[in-house]
Amino acid sequence: MPRVVDHGLRRDEIARALWRIAAAEGLEAVSLARVAQEAGVSKGRVQHYFASRDELLDFAAQQLRLRVDERVRARMATAAPSSPLEEVRVLLGALLPLDDEARADARVGSAFLIRSLGDERLRETYRAGDRLLHDAVADRLAAARDRGELAALDPDREAVVLLALAGGLAESVLLGGTDGAGALAVLDHQLGRLRP
Amino acid sequence: MPRVVDHGLRRDEIARALWRIAAAEGLEAVSLARVAQEAGVSKGRVQHYFASRDELLDFAAQQLRLRVDERVRARMATAAPSSPLEEVRVLLGALLPLDDEARADARVGSAFLIRSLGDERLRETYRAGDRLLHDAVADRLAAARDRGELAALDPDREAVVLLALAGGLAESVLLGGTDGAGALAVLDHQLGRLRP
Repeated sequence: MPRVVDHGLRRDEIARALWRIAAAEGLEAVSLARVAQEAGVSKGRVQHYFASRDELLDFAAQQLRLRVDERVRARMATAAPSSPLEEVRVLLGALLPLDDEARADARVGSAFLIRSLGDERLRETYRAGDRLLHDAVADRLAAARDRGELAALDPDREAVVLLALAGGLAESVLLGGTDGAGALAVLDHQLGRLRP
Repeated sequence: MPRVVDHGLRRDEIARALWRIAAAEGLEAVSLARVAQEAGVSKGRVQHYFASRDELLDFAAQQLRLRVDERVRARMATAAPSSPLEEVRVLLGALLPLDDEARADARVGSAFLIRSLGDERLRETYRAGDRLLHDAVADRLAAARDRGELAALDPDREAVVLLALAGGLAESVLLGGTDGAGALAVLDHQLGRLRP
Protein backbone atom coordinates (compact mmCIF):
# COMPACT_ATOMS: atom_id res chain seq x y z
CA MET A 1 0.00 0.00 0.00
CA PRO A 2 1.36 3.45 -0.82
CA ARG A 3 2.14 5.55 2.22
CA VAL A 4 0.40 8.61 0.81
CA VAL A 5 -2.04 9.97 3.37
CA ASP A 6 -5.27 11.62 2.31
CA HIS A 7 -5.18 14.59 4.65
CA GLY A 8 -8.83 15.55 4.17
CA LEU A 9 -9.80 12.03 5.10
CA ARG A 10 -7.61 11.89 8.22
CA ARG A 11 -9.02 15.22 9.38
CA ASP A 12 -12.53 13.89 8.78
CA GLU A 13 -11.77 10.70 10.71
CA ILE A 14 -10.54 12.76 13.63
CA ALA A 15 -13.61 15.01 13.44
CA ARG A 16 -15.87 11.94 13.42
CA ALA A 17 -14.12 10.57 16.49
CA LEU A 18 -14.67 13.89 18.25
CA TRP A 19 -18.32 13.68 17.21
CA ARG A 20 -18.83 10.26 18.76
CA ILE A 21 -17.31 11.41 22.06
CA ALA A 22 -19.19 14.72 22.16
CA ALA A 23 -22.55 13.12 21.28
CA ALA A 24 -22.17 10.43 23.94
CA GLU A 25 -20.55 12.40 26.76
CA GLY A 26 -20.60 16.10 25.87
CA LEU A 27 -17.78 18.50 25.07
CA GLU A 28 -16.45 18.10 28.60
CA ALA A 29 -15.10 14.71 27.57
CA VAL A 30 -13.31 16.02 24.46
CA SER A 31 -9.52 16.23 24.75
CA LEU A 32 -6.72 15.75 22.22
CA ALA A 33 -5.66 12.51 23.94
CA ARG A 34 -9.20 11.13 24.12
CA VAL A 35 -9.93 11.96 20.46
CA ALA A 36 -6.64 10.35 19.39
CA GLN A 37 -7.57 7.19 21.29
CA GLU A 38 -11.08 7.10 19.77
CA ALA A 39 -9.72 7.66 16.24
CA GLY A 40 -7.01 5.03 16.76
CA VAL A 41 -4.15 7.45 16.00
CA SER A 42 -1.41 9.04 18.09
CA LYS A 43 -1.95 12.28 19.98
CA GLY A 44 0.84 13.74 17.79
CA ARG A 45 -1.20 12.88 14.69
CA VAL A 46 -4.19 14.81 16.08
CA GLN A 47 -1.90 17.73 16.92
CA HIS A 48 -0.62 17.68 13.34
CA TYR A 49 -4.08 18.88 12.27
CA PHE A 50 -5.25 20.65 15.41
CA ALA A 51 -2.75 22.55 17.51
CA SER A 52 -5.06 22.74 20.52
CA ARG A 53 -8.36 21.51 21.93
CA ASP A 54 -9.89 24.89 21.03
CA GLU A 55 -8.91 24.46 17.36
CA LEU A 56 -10.46 21.02 17.37
CA LEU A 57 -13.69 22.38 18.84
CA ASP A 58 -13.80 25.32 16.38
CA PHE A 59 -13.44 22.90 13.48
CA ALA A 60 -16.24 20.73 14.89
CA ALA A 61 -18.52 23.79 15.26
CA GLN A 62 -18.04 24.63 11.58
CA GLN A 63 -18.67 20.99 10.65
CA LEU A 64 -21.91 21.03 12.62
CA ARG A 65 -23.30 23.96 10.62
CA LEU A 66 -22.33 22.22 7.36
CA ARG A 67 -23.98 18.98 8.50
CA VAL A 68 -27.26 20.74 9.34
CA ASP A 69 -27.22 22.57 5.97
CA GLU A 70 -26.49 19.28 4.23
CA ARG A 71 -29.34 17.50 6.05
CA VAL A 72 -31.81 20.26 5.11
CA ARG A 73 -30.65 20.06 1.48
CA ALA A 74 -30.86 16.25 1.40
CA ARG A 75 -34.37 16.20 2.92
CA MET A 76 -35.48 18.85 0.44
CA ALA A 77 -34.12 16.76 -2.45
CA THR A 78 -35.76 13.54 -1.20
CA ALA A 79 -39.12 15.01 -0.23
CA ALA A 80 -39.32 17.11 -3.43
CA PRO A 81 -41.86 19.54 -1.93
CA SER A 82 -44.35 20.75 -4.51
CA SER A 83 -45.11 24.19 -3.04
CA PRO A 84 -43.47 26.86 -0.85
CA LEU A 85 -45.65 25.78 2.09
CA GLU A 86 -44.51 22.16 1.69
CA GLU A 87 -40.92 23.44 1.56
CA VAL A 88 -41.41 25.16 4.92
CA ARG A 89 -42.76 21.91 6.34
CA VAL A 90 -39.78 19.88 5.11
CA LEU A 91 -37.31 22.52 6.25
CA LEU A 92 -38.72 22.68 9.79
CA GLY A 93 -38.90 18.88 9.98
CA ALA A 94 -35.22 18.67 9.02
CA LEU A 95 -34.39 20.64 12.19
CA LEU A 96 -35.85 17.94 14.46
CA PRO A 97 -33.60 15.12 15.75
CA LEU A 98 -35.56 12.34 14.01
CA ASP A 99 -32.80 9.81 13.32
CA ASP A 100 -29.62 8.72 15.11
CA GLU A 101 -27.37 10.97 13.06
CA ALA A 102 -29.55 14.05 13.58
CA ARG A 103 -29.84 13.15 17.25
CA ALA A 104 -26.06 12.99 17.64
CA ASP A 105 -25.74 16.33 15.84
CA ALA A 106 -28.39 17.90 18.07
CA ARG A 107 -26.54 16.73 21.18
CA VAL A 108 -23.30 18.19 19.91
CA GLY A 109 -25.17 21.33 18.87
CA SER A 110 -26.57 21.79 22.37
CA ALA A 111 -23.08 21.41 23.79
CA PHE A 112 -21.77 24.08 21.44
CA LEU A 113 -24.69 26.32 22.32
CA ILE A 114 -23.50 26.35 25.94
CA ARG A 115 -19.94 26.96 24.84
CA SER A 116 -21.08 29.85 22.66
CA LEU A 117 -22.72 31.63 25.61
CA GLY A 118 -19.27 32.61 26.83
CA ASP A 119 -17.81 33.19 23.36
CA GLU A 120 -19.15 36.12 21.30
CA ARG A 121 -17.46 34.95 18.07
CA LEU A 122 -19.09 31.50 18.25
CA ARG A 123 -22.40 33.14 19.21
CA GLU A 124 -22.25 35.29 16.08
CA THR A 125 -21.60 32.13 13.99
CA TYR A 126 -24.79 30.69 15.50
CA ARG A 127 -26.81 33.82 14.88
CA ALA A 128 -25.61 34.01 11.26
CA GLY A 129 -26.82 30.43 10.70
CA ASP A 130 -30.13 31.25 12.39
CA ARG A 131 -30.58 34.32 10.17
CA LEU A 132 -30.14 32.17 7.03
CA LEU A 133 -32.78 29.74 8.31
CA HIS A 134 -35.06 32.63 9.21
CA ASP A 135 -34.79 34.13 5.73
CA ALA A 136 -35.35 30.74 4.07
CA VAL A 137 -38.56 30.23 6.08
CA ALA A 138 -39.82 33.84 5.78
CA ASP A 139 -39.27 33.92 1.98
CA ARG A 140 -41.24 30.70 1.53
CA LEU A 141 -44.05 31.90 3.82
CA ALA A 142 -44.30 35.09 1.75
CA ALA A 143 -44.39 33.05 -1.48
CA ALA A 144 -47.07 30.72 -0.02
CA ARG A 145 -49.14 33.73 1.03
CA ASP A 146 -48.78 35.32 -2.42
CA ARG A 147 -49.96 32.07 -4.03
CA GLY A 148 -52.98 31.94 -1.73
CA GLU A 149 -51.76 28.82 0.17
CA LEU A 150 -51.63 30.90 3.34
CA ALA A 151 -53.80 33.66 4.78
CA ALA A 152 -52.54 37.24 5.04
CA LEU A 153 -49.64 37.15 7.52
CA ASP A 154 -46.35 38.77 8.48
CA PRO A 155 -43.76 36.30 7.11
CA ASP A 156 -40.98 37.52 9.43
CA ARG A 157 -43.06 37.19 12.55
CA GLU A 158 -44.40 33.75 11.63
CA ALA A 159 -40.89 32.58 10.72
CA VAL A 160 -39.75 33.56 14.24
CA VAL A 161 -42.65 31.63 15.76
CA LEU A 162 -42.11 28.52 13.62
CA LEU A 163 -38.33 28.38 14.15
CA ALA A 164 -38.59 28.95 17.91
CA LEU A 165 -41.29 26.27 18.03
CA ALA A 166 -39.08 23.83 16.07
CA GLY A 167 -36.18 24.62 18.44
CA GLY A 168 -38.29 23.94 21.53
CA LEU A 169 -39.70 20.75 20.02
CA ALA A 170 -36.20 19.54 19.11
CA GLU A 171 -35.21 19.86 22.77
CA SER A 172 -38.34 18.01 23.85
CA VAL A 173 -37.56 15.15 21.43
CA LEU A 174 -33.99 14.94 22.78
CA LEU A 175 -35.29 14.73 26.34
CA GLY A 176 -37.86 12.09 25.38
CA GLY A 177 -40.81 14.34 26.33
CA THR A 178 -42.26 13.83 22.86
CA ASP A 179 -41.39 11.64 19.87
CA GLY A 180 -40.70 12.64 16.27
CA ALA A 181 -44.27 11.99 15.09
CA GLY A 182 -45.66 14.08 17.96
CA ALA A 183 -43.31 16.97 17.18
CA LEU A 184 -44.18 16.89 13.46
CA ALA A 185 -47.90 16.88 14.36
CA VAL A 186 -47.40 20.02 16.47
CA LEU A 187 -45.61 21.77 13.58
CA ASP A 188 -48.44 20.75 11.21
CA HIS A 189 -50.99 22.05 13.69
CA GLN A 190 -49.26 25.43 13.77
CA LEU A 191 -48.86 25.55 9.97
CA GLY A 192 -52.54 24.58 9.55
CA ARG A 193 -53.44 27.63 11.58
CA LEU A 194 -51.81 29.87 8.96
CA ARG A 195 -54.02 28.56 6.14
CA PRO A 196 -56.69 30.86 4.66
CA MET B 1 -17.97 35.43 67.55
CA PRO B 2 -19.38 31.98 68.26
CA ARG B 3 -17.91 29.22 66.14
CA VAL B 4 -21.30 27.71 65.40
CA VAL B 5 -21.65 27.14 61.68
CA ASP B 6 -25.00 27.41 59.95
CA HIS B 7 -24.75 24.33 57.76
CA GLY B 8 -27.65 25.23 55.47
CA LEU B 9 -25.99 28.58 54.84
CA ARG B 10 -22.56 27.06 54.07
CA ARG B 11 -24.13 24.61 51.66
CA ASP B 12 -25.97 27.50 50.00
CA GLU B 13 -22.77 29.53 49.76
CA ILE B 14 -21.05 26.62 48.07
CA ALA B 15 -24.00 26.12 45.71
CA ARG B 16 -23.92 29.83 44.82
CA ALA B 17 -20.19 29.63 44.07
CA LEU B 18 -20.87 26.65 41.78
CA TRP B 19 -23.60 28.72 40.12
CA ARG B 20 -21.31 31.62 39.34
CA ILE B 21 -18.72 29.30 37.77
CA ALA B 22 -21.27 27.27 35.78
CA ALA B 23 -23.08 30.37 34.49
CA ALA B 24 -19.85 32.02 33.35
CA GLU B 25 -17.91 29.02 32.05
CA GLY B 26 -20.25 26.02 31.92
CA LEU B 27 -20.25 22.78 33.90
CA GLU B 28 -16.91 21.84 32.34
CA ALA B 29 -15.26 24.36 34.65
CA VAL B 30 -16.90 23.00 37.81
CA SER B 31 -14.60 21.01 40.10
CA LEU B 32 -14.46 20.62 43.88
CA ALA B 33 -11.20 22.60 43.98
CA ARG B 34 -12.50 25.40 41.78
CA VAL B 35 -15.75 25.73 43.75
CA ALA B 36 -13.80 25.79 47.02
CA GLN B 37 -11.61 28.60 45.66
CA GLU B 38 -14.65 30.59 44.42
CA ALA B 39 -16.48 30.16 47.75
CA GLY B 40 -13.34 31.08 49.71
CA VAL B 41 -13.31 27.82 51.70
CA SER B 42 -11.03 24.77 51.72
CA LYS B 43 -11.57 21.86 49.38
CA GLY B 44 -12.07 19.73 52.49
CA ARG B 45 -14.94 21.99 53.53
CA VAL B 46 -16.64 21.44 50.16
CA GLN B 47 -16.10 17.68 50.51
CA HIS B 48 -17.71 17.84 53.96
CA TYR B 49 -21.00 18.61 52.17
CA PHE B 50 -20.41 17.00 48.77
CA ALA B 51 -18.41 13.78 48.56
CA SER B 52 -17.84 14.12 44.82
CA ARG B 53 -18.24 16.42 41.85
CA ASP B 54 -21.29 14.38 40.81
CA GLU B 55 -23.00 15.00 44.17
CA LEU B 56 -22.29 18.71 43.82
CA LEU B 57 -23.82 18.73 40.33
CA ASP B 58 -26.88 16.71 41.45
CA PHE B 59 -27.50 19.21 44.24
CA ALA B 60 -27.19 22.09 41.79
CA ALA B 61 -29.68 20.43 39.39
CA GLN B 62 -32.26 20.19 42.19
CA GLN B 63 -31.57 23.81 43.16
CA LEU B 64 -32.16 24.88 39.57
CA ARG B 65 -35.66 23.38 39.49
CA LEU B 66 -36.46 25.07 42.83
CA ARG B 67 -35.16 28.42 41.54
CA VAL B 68 -37.32 28.25 38.40
CA ASP B 69 -40.40 27.30 40.47
CA GLU B 70 -39.63 30.13 42.87
CA ARG B 71 -39.26 32.64 40.02
CA VAL B 72 -42.58 31.58 38.49
CA ARG B 73 -44.24 31.92 41.90
CA ALA B 74 -42.67 35.34 42.55
CA ARG B 75 -43.67 36.70 39.13
CA MET B 76 -47.20 35.41 39.65
CA ALA B 77 -47.37 37.15 43.05
CA THR B 78 -46.01 40.45 41.68
CA ALA B 79 -48.01 40.55 38.46
CA ALA B 80 -51.23 39.45 40.21
CA PRO B 81 -52.83 38.22 36.97
CA SER B 82 -56.59 38.82 36.93
CA SER B 83 -57.63 35.91 34.70
CA PRO B 84 -56.44 32.42 33.70
CA LEU B 85 -55.23 33.79 30.35
CA GLU B 86 -53.17 36.47 32.11
CA GLU B 87 -51.75 33.74 34.34
CA VAL B 88 -50.58 31.81 31.27
CA ARG B 89 -48.93 34.97 29.98
CA VAL B 90 -47.08 35.59 33.25
CA LEU B 91 -46.09 31.94 33.57
CA LEU B 92 -44.62 31.77 30.06
CA GLY B 93 -42.84 35.10 30.52
CA ALA B 94 -41.25 33.77 33.73
CA LEU B 95 -39.55 31.06 31.63
CA LEU B 96 -37.65 33.63 29.54
CA PRO B 97 -34.18 34.78 30.67
CA LEU B 98 -35.19 38.42 31.15
CA ASP B 99 -32.86 39.48 33.96
CA ASP B 100 -29.31 38.62 35.02
CA GLU B 101 -30.41 36.05 37.56
CA ALA B 102 -32.75 34.27 35.14
CA ARG B 103 -30.06 34.46 32.46
CA ALA B 104 -27.51 32.80 34.76
CA ASP B 105 -30.07 30.10 35.61
CA ALA B 106 -30.85 29.53 31.93
CA ARG B 107 -27.16 29.08 31.17
CA VAL B 108 -26.78 26.58 33.96
CA GLY B 109 -30.03 24.93 32.84
CA SER B 110 -28.70 24.50 29.30
CA ALA B 111 -25.54 22.93 30.70
CA PHE B 112 -27.59 20.47 32.73
CA LEU B 113 -29.74 19.71 29.72
CA ILE B 114 -26.65 18.43 27.91
CA ARG B 115 -25.58 16.48 30.94
CA SER B 116 -29.05 14.93 31.19
CA LEU B 117 -28.85 13.57 27.63
CA GLY B 118 -26.46 10.91 28.87
CA ASP B 119 -28.21 10.38 32.21
CA GLU B 120 -31.71 8.86 32.25
CA ARG B 121 -32.33 9.73 35.92
CA LEU B 122 -31.58 13.42 35.36
CA ARG B 123 -33.64 13.35 32.14
CA GLU B 124 -36.63 12.03 34.08
CA THR B 125 -36.18 14.87 36.62
CA TYR B 126 -36.37 17.30 33.69
CA ARG B 127 -39.41 15.65 32.18
CA ALA B 128 -41.21 15.63 35.54
CA GLY B 129 -40.65 19.39 35.83
CA ASP B 130 -41.84 19.88 32.26
CA ARG B 131 -44.99 17.87 32.96
CA LEU B 132 -45.84 20.12 35.93
CA LEU B 133 -45.40 23.20 33.72
CA HIS B 134 -47.47 21.58 30.98
CA ASP B 135 -50.34 20.83 33.38
CA ALA B 136 -50.20 24.35 34.84
CA VAL B 137 -50.51 25.89 31.36
CA ALA B 138 -53.09 23.40 30.04
CA ASP B 139 -55.34 23.81 33.11
CA ARG B 140 -55.32 27.60 32.73
CA LEU B 141 -55.98 27.42 28.99
CA ALA B 142 -58.97 25.18 29.68
CA ALA B 143 -60.24 27.62 32.32
CA ALA B 144 -59.75 30.58 29.96
CA ARG B 145 -61.66 28.73 27.23
CA ASP B 146 -64.47 27.86 29.63
CA ARG B 147 -64.77 31.55 30.65
CA GLY B 148 -64.89 32.59 26.98
CA GLU B 149 -61.49 34.36 27.05
CA LEU B 150 -60.24 31.89 24.44
CA ALA B 151 -61.82 30.20 21.44
CA ALA B 152 -62.57 26.47 21.38
CA LEU B 153 -59.18 24.74 21.57
CA ASP B 154 -57.38 21.63 22.76
CA PRO B 155 -55.65 22.83 25.96
CA ASP B 156 -53.04 20.04 25.91
CA ARG B 157 -52.01 20.67 22.35
CA GLU B 158 -51.82 24.45 22.79
CA ALA B 159 -49.85 24.02 26.01
CA VAL B 160 -47.28 21.96 24.07
CA VAL B 161 -47.06 24.67 21.40
CA LEU B 162 -46.74 27.52 23.91
CA LEU B 163 -44.11 25.80 26.09
CA ALA B 164 -42.00 24.70 23.10
CA LEU B 165 -42.28 28.24 21.74
CA ALA B 166 -41.17 29.71 25.09
CA GLY B 167 -38.25 27.23 25.17
CA GLY B 168 -37.11 28.18 21.67
CA LEU B 169 -37.46 31.89 22.45
CA ALA B 170 -35.47 31.50 25.67
CA GLU B 171 -32.59 30.05 23.64
CA SER B 172 -32.84 32.89 21.14
CA VAL B 173 -32.69 35.47 23.95
CA LEU B 174 -29.61 33.75 25.41
CA LEU B 175 -27.89 33.85 22.02
CA GLY B 176 -28.82 37.49 21.51
CA GLY B 177 -30.92 36.71 18.42
CA THR B 178 -33.86 38.50 20.03
CA ASP B 179 -34.35 40.57 23.18
CA GLY B 180 -36.80 40.10 26.02
CA ALA B 181 -39.37 42.53 24.62
CA GLY B 182 -39.23 40.81 21.23
CA ALA B 183 -39.71 37.38 22.79
CA LEU B 184 -42.67 38.59 24.90
CA ALA B 185 -44.24 40.13 21.77
CA VAL B 186 -43.98 36.78 19.98
CA LEU B 187 -45.68 35.01 22.92
CA ASP B 188 -48.43 37.64 22.92
CA HIS B 189 -48.87 37.22 19.18
CA GLN B 190 -49.37 33.47 19.63
CA LEU B 191 -51.74 33.95 22.59
CA GLY B 192 -53.71 36.55 20.64
CA ARG B 193 -54.30 33.92 17.97
CA LEU B 194 -56.14 31.75 20.51
CA ARG B 195 -58.68 34.46 21.31
CA PRO B 196 -62.30 34.00 20.14
